[in-house]
Amino acid sequence: MATCINEPKFSCSYPKYCRPTFSTPHNRPKIPHNDRTIHQEQEDDDLWVKIQEEARSDIEGEPILSTYYHASILSHKTLEIALSNHLSVKLSNSTLPSSTLFDLFLSVLSEDPKIVKSVRADLRAVKERDPACISYVHCFLNFKGFLACQAHRISHRLWSQSRKVLSLLIQNRVSEVFAVDIHPGARIGSGILLDHATGLVVGETAVIGDDVSILHNVTLGGTGKECGDRHPKIGDGVLIGAGSCILGSIRVCDGAKVGAGSVVLKDVPARTTAVGNPARLLGGKENPVRLDKIPSFTMDHTSHISEWSNYVI
Amino acid sequence: MATCINEPKFSCSYPKYCRPTFSTPHNRPKIPHNDRTIHQEQEDDDLWVKIQEEARSDIEGEPILSTYYHASILSHKTLEIALSNHLSVKLSNSTLPSSTLFDLFLSVLSEDPKIVKSVRADLRAVKERDPACISYVHCFLNFKGFLACQAHRISHRLWSQSRKVLSLLIQNRVSEVFAVDIHPGARIGSGILLDHATGLVVGETAVIGDDVSILHNVTLGGTGKECGDRHPKIGDGVLIGAGSCILGSIRVCDGAKVGAGSVVLKDVPARTTAVGNPARLLGGKENPVRLDKIPSFTMDHTSHISEWSNYVI
Amino acid sequence: MATCINEPKFSCSYPKYCRPTFSTPHNRPKIPHNDRTIHQEQEDDDLWVKIQEEARSDIEGEPILSTYYHASILSHKTLEIALSNHLSVKLSNSTLPSSTLFDLFLSVLSEDPKIVKSVRADLRAVKERDPACISYVHCFLNFKGFLACQAHRISHRLWSQSRKVLSLLIQNRVSEVFAVDIHPGARIGSGILLDHATGLVVGETAVIGDDVSILHNVTLGGTGKECGDRHPKIGDGVLIGAGSCILGSIRVCDGAKVGAGSVVLKDVPARTTAVGNPARLLGGKENPVRLDKIPSFTMDHTSHISEWSNYVI
Repeated sequence: MATCINEPKFSCSYPKYCRPTFSTPHNRPKIPHNDRTIHQEQEDDDLWVKIQEEARSDIEGEPILSTYYHASILSHKTLEIALSNHLSVKLSNSTLPSSTLFDLFLSVLSEDPKIVKSVRADLRAVKERDPACISYVHCFLNFKGFLACQAHRISHRLWSQSRKVLSLLIQNRVSEVFAVDIHPGARIGSGILLDHATGLVVGETAVIGDDVSILHNVTLGGTGKECGDRHPKIGDGVLIGAGSCILGSIRVCDGAKVGAGSVVLKDVPARTTAVGNPARLLGGKENPVRLDKIPSFTMDHTSHISEWSNYVI
Repeated sequence: MATCINEPKFSCSYPKYCRPTFSTPHNRPKIPHNDRTIHQEQEDDDLWVKIQEEARSDIEGEPILSTYYHASILSHKTLEIALSNHLSVKLSNSTLPSSTLFDLFLSVLSEDPKIVKSVRADLRAVKERDPACISYVHCFLNFKGFLACQAHRISHRLWSQSRKVLSLLIQNRVSEVFAVDIHPGARIGSGILLDHATGLVVGETAVIGDDVSILHNVTLGGTGKECGDRHPKIGDGVLIGAGSCILGSIRVCDGAKVGAGSVVLKDVPARTTAVGNPARLLGGKENPVRLDKIPSFTMDHTSHISEWSNYVI
Repeated sequence: MATCINEPKFSCSYPKYCRPTFSTPHNRPKIPHNDRTIHQEQEDDDLWVKIQEEARSDIEGEPILSTYYHASILSHKTLEIALSNHLSVKLSNSTLPSSTLFDLFLSVLSEDPKIVKSVRADLRAVKERDPACISYVHCFLNFKGFLACQAHRISHRLWSQSRKVLSLLIQNRVSEVFAVDIHPGARIGSGILLDHATGLVVGETAVIGDDVSILHNVTLGGTGKECGDRHPKIGDGVLIGAGSCILGSIRVCDGAKVGAGSVVLKDVPARTTAVGNPARLLGGKENPVRLDKIPSFTMDHTSHISEWSNYVI
C-alpha cells in the first residue's frame, strides 16, 4: 500500500513519475500486490519450515548452540509462537517476567494476521537486501532492527486498541534493549529493513510506507511541543542513509533517497535524491535527477558522488 | 541558576539580551526562583501522590501490569525510595546486585535534598515539553533520558565526594543499559529534558544550565588528550537538536538553539540559532536573529527554515 | 602493521609523507615494532599485576565493591581468564548461559596469543589517550568500547575459522549490550581506542589499522546489496570524530583525521584532515594541509578551526 497516495494531504506525484519507469530489481517476476494472496500463503508456510531447516543445519556445525536453538526455534510449532517467545525473552527483566510478555505477544499475533504477514515480508526484505544476512534464522535470532520492528507492530496494535500504557512500556523496553525508539503510534508498512538499527528514533505521527530501508541513527522527528501531526511521512521504496535527521510533518515521497548524514526539513519529491546538511536535491530543485531504480532495493548509498560535484575531496 | 552568568570566564551578555524580552511560555504565573521554596515543597508532596494516583488508574485499565506497578510504584512511600528501587533494578546485573545499588542510591538521595528537587523539576519538564509524555508515571517508569539523568545526579554527588570508582561504575552501567554516557564530573542543572536520549555523550568538564532540552545522539565532547577543562558549557533554556556535536570548552549561551545535525566548535551567543556543519548563526554573525521565546520550552526545531535560505530543497 | 601499506590496492603514499616527519607524541622512547617482543612480554606480565593492584586499591576506598571486584578481577589468575569471565557475564542472557560463553572465549584466547597482545595494546591505548580513563582496571571493567573490541577480536577469530553462526551471535549480543555493531568479518589492528562507542557500526569488509582512535556514532558502512568488498579501509594512526559516516570501499590513509559529523565518500590522503558534509580537505585538494602529529594520539578534534574559515560562527 502506498502510504503517500492514500494520505489526503499528500502532494507527491508518485503515479506519474515513480512506478512506471522503475526497472524491476528482482529476478523473480513481480506479482501485483492484489493477486498475491494464494501464492504468498504457500510461501509463508514454507518460510517457517525453511527457518527450522536452517536451525538444524546451524546446530550440526555448532553443537554448543543446540540448547539455544532448541529453546528459540526448534521447540516451537509456528513462527508466531517462536517470535513471541524470542521477543519476550529479550524484553523481560526482573520486574517484568517473560511469561507475561509471551502471553501478550502471542495473543496479539494470533488476532492479527496482517502483522504475521508483515513479519514474513520483513524477513524476506532483510534476506534480500542486506548482504550481511546469511539466512532467515540469522535475521530472526540476531537482527535487532528486525526484532524491534516486530515488537513495534505488536505495540502499535495495542496502541490502536487504546492500550496505551502497555504499548508505551513495550516501546521503552525496546529502546533499552535494542536502542531503537519507535513510538507505538507510528504506522509502518511491510517489507521493512532497519539495518543495524542502533539509535533509530521514529515519532508518534510518523508514517513509513512499504518496502522501505532505513539505516541506523536515523531520526523521523517532530517539532514543537503541541500534540497532533508533527512527524515525517515516508513513501514506499524509500532509502534513508545512516545518521539522517528528517524533522516535522514533511513528506519523503515514493522511491526517494536520503543520503547519509542529511538534515531534511522540507518535502523530498518522488524518485529524487536529497543529500547534505541542509539537504539539497541532486540536480537542483528545478530539474532534479530522477532515480530509475528503487533505492530501498538497490541499497546504493554512494553512486550519487559523481553527480554531485561538491562530493569531491 | 544561570550557569553562564556565574562562570567567571563567561562572556555572554545574557542579562542584556536574554531574559527581559522573553515572553513566558507557561500558562501558570512564573514564580521567581528565590521565592519559590514554600510553594514548591507543597507541589513536591503532591507530585508523588499524583504519580501513585496515575499508577492506580493505569492498573485499572491494564490489570496484567498490577505486579509491575506495585513493585515499582505503589509499594513505595516516597518518590526517592521508588526511584532508588527502579534505578537499582534497571542498572543491576548478575555481579552487581540491585540491593547494593538500592542502598547506595537511597543513601545519596536521603542526604541531598537538592537532587530530590531536581528529580521533581525534571519530571515536570518532561511532562510539560514532550507531547509524547502522557503522565508523570509514564515518564518515571519509561523515559530512559529521565532515568539516566537521575542516575547521573547520584553519580555526580559521589564524584564530588571523591568516590570516583563507584561513580564511574554507575556511568558505565547507565551507558550499557540506557546508551547514555554522561561523565560523573559533568554538572547538570534542573528542569532537564533528555528526549529519547540514545547516544547522548556528555564529557567530564561539561556544564549544563537549568531548563535545558537536549535531543538524542547529542555530543558535548572534548578535544585533545590533556586533562582539565575541555568540554562545552550550555546555558539556561538552551535547545540542542538531535545528532549535534558540540566540541571543546566553548559556550552555548542562555536561550540559544542548536539545530539538528549541527557541528559547533565556537561560542553561540545568547538567544541565537546555530545550524549546519560547520554551524553558522541564522542572520549572520554580525547581526544574528534573536529568539523571543525560550527554545527549550517551545521545542521548535524547524521554524528557522524560512529564515535560512539554504534550507530550501 | 600498517594495513594501508600491505593492501595491494592501496594507493596512499604513506612512507613518503607520513612517518618520517611525525614528531613522536610519547614521552617514552618509541621501540621499533619488530624489536619489540621481549620488552613487551615483560610489560604484558606486569600489566595484569598492575590491574590487580589497582583493584585492591579501589576496594580499599570502596568496600561495597569488594564482591564485584573479587568476582571480576581478583579471583582470576590471568588477564585472559578475567576477560573471558567479564565478557561472558555481560553478554549472557537467560537462553545463552555465561558458562557456555566463558568456555568459548577462553578457548579462543588460549589459542591465539595475537589477540592477547592486542588486548594489552588496547588497554594501554585507552589509558594513554583518553583523559577520562583513570586506571587500567577502570578501562577493563567499564569501557564498553574496549570490551566490544575484545569481543570482536574473539568473534573475528571464529569467523576466520568458518564458525560464522557463533561469530554472528556474538556480534548481535555485543550490539544489544554495548550498542556497538562490528561485523565479525572486519579486520582490526591493535592499539585501538573506541571512545564512548555507542552507535559505532563497522561493516564486514572494513579494515582498521593499528593505533586508531574512533569516537562514538561512527559508521564504516557499505553501499549496494552485492556481497564482496564494500567497506572502508582505515590506515594506521587515524582519528575519526564523533558521528562521522565513511561509506564504500574507500581509503582513509595513515595519519589522517576525519572531523566530527563528516560524511566521507572518497579517499582521504595520508596526514590530511577531512571535514564537513560532504567532506573536504583542509587546505584544498590540490595542496592539503599535512598533519605533523599522529591524530589518533593527540585526540585533537578542533584545532583545524582556525584553518578552516567557514568554521567561524
